[in-house]
Amino acid sequence: MLIDALHGLPGVGVKSAQRMAYHLLQHDRHGAMRLSQALAGAVQTVHHCTRCHTFTEDEVCPICLDPGRDARQLCVVETPADQAAMERTGSYHGLYYVLMGRMSPLEGIGASELGMELLTRRAVDGVVEEVILATSFTAEGEATAHILGEGLRQHGLVVTRLARGVPAGSELEYVDLSTIAHALADRR
Amino acid sequence: MLIDALHGLPGVGVKSAQRMAYHLLQHDRHGAMRLSQALAGAVQTVHHCTRCHTFTEDEVCPICLDPGRDARQLCVVETPADQAAMERTGSYHGLYYVLMGRMSPLEGIGASELGMELLTRRAVDGVVEEVILATSFTAEGEATAHILGEGLRQHGLVVTRLARGVPAGSELEYVDLSTIAHALADRR
Ligand SMILES: [Zn+2]
Ligand SMILES: [Zn+2]
Repeated sequence: MLIDALHGLPGVGVKSAQRMAYHLLQHDRHGAMRLSQALAGAVQTVHHCTRCHTFTEDEVCPICLDPGRDARQLCVVETPADQAAMERTGSYHGLYYVLMGRMSPLEGIGASELGMELLTRRAVDGVVEEVILATSFTAEGEATAHILGEGLRQHGLVVTRLARGVPAGSELEYVDLSTIAHALADRR
Repeated sequence: MLIDALHGLPGVGVKSAQRMAYHLLQHDRHGAMRLSQALAGAVQTVHHCTRCHTFTEDEVCPICLDPGRDARQLCVVETPADQAAMERTGSYHGLYYVLMGRMSPLEGIGASELGMELLTRRAVDGVVEEVILATSFTAEGEATAHILGEGLRQHGLVVTRLARGVPAGSELEYVDLSTIAHALADRR
């Protein structure tokens, strides 16, 4: 049963799940309990920031609450990992909106499933002037940027996209920091 | 904290841990709770079989209790995964002793840490006639087989080793079944 549950993790095959279960029970029961409690705790306390939609244990996440951020810029990313990659560049000081996914017509994920309404409501607060679309440079990420851009421009917002300095076909999370920083500077 | 705990699993880097946490919280909170409970349950209920030393939730594991197994043969393996590989060959019908590790002088794991005494006590029950050493064909696995063999022969037991049909340097768990079956037939 433990092997089945570990096998349910993304990227973990049966053999890996067996190794993990063996390791935890034979060598790291403390780690097993720690992981058990971390999982239960996260499921109980982690929800979406009411401002940017990322995961947080608070009503509003620390970045949204930070008065040092430039509230006139709103960067739209797909996942918290992509947001973390943007943060690590050290060259973006605005706020974020985290989609928690991207459009995928094949899987029935369109603009409404992605929370286009929530994003629009966030972007038309009267303070945001520019929305920077930093979705992945994959077919799905580009489609997402296209649809979001059309919707946001209708509300009079300046909409830009990270420059194509990001290698095509790559996920933002795995792109090196200087490439992201350049793409941010060259946004169009 | 959840990412840290997942990162503690063998073979899981920081990026994988981030992906797992995101997947669980965004798409599979049910799976997260299931894994949490499976971990806590296993830590609480899984211990060592008093006969063969493998993991079990009972006092004695199902294989040791099976009256259809030939109690005159005792196969010594390193891990439950290796035992499972032997079982899948369908060509072994004796009992097992699971070391739960192998000797590793560099890590300070010698015969006593491996439970040589427990194994000896198990093997000299008056019923076991042959001990088949099925430890890995790595340097450490061979050393383990050598030391265990010397100790067991002193007690008048017939000690055999899986034939070298198993490719050198490989872990039993990853060897194809027919190779293991042949090696079992050719044991020396
Ligand atoms: Zn936020
Ligand atoms: Zn047993």
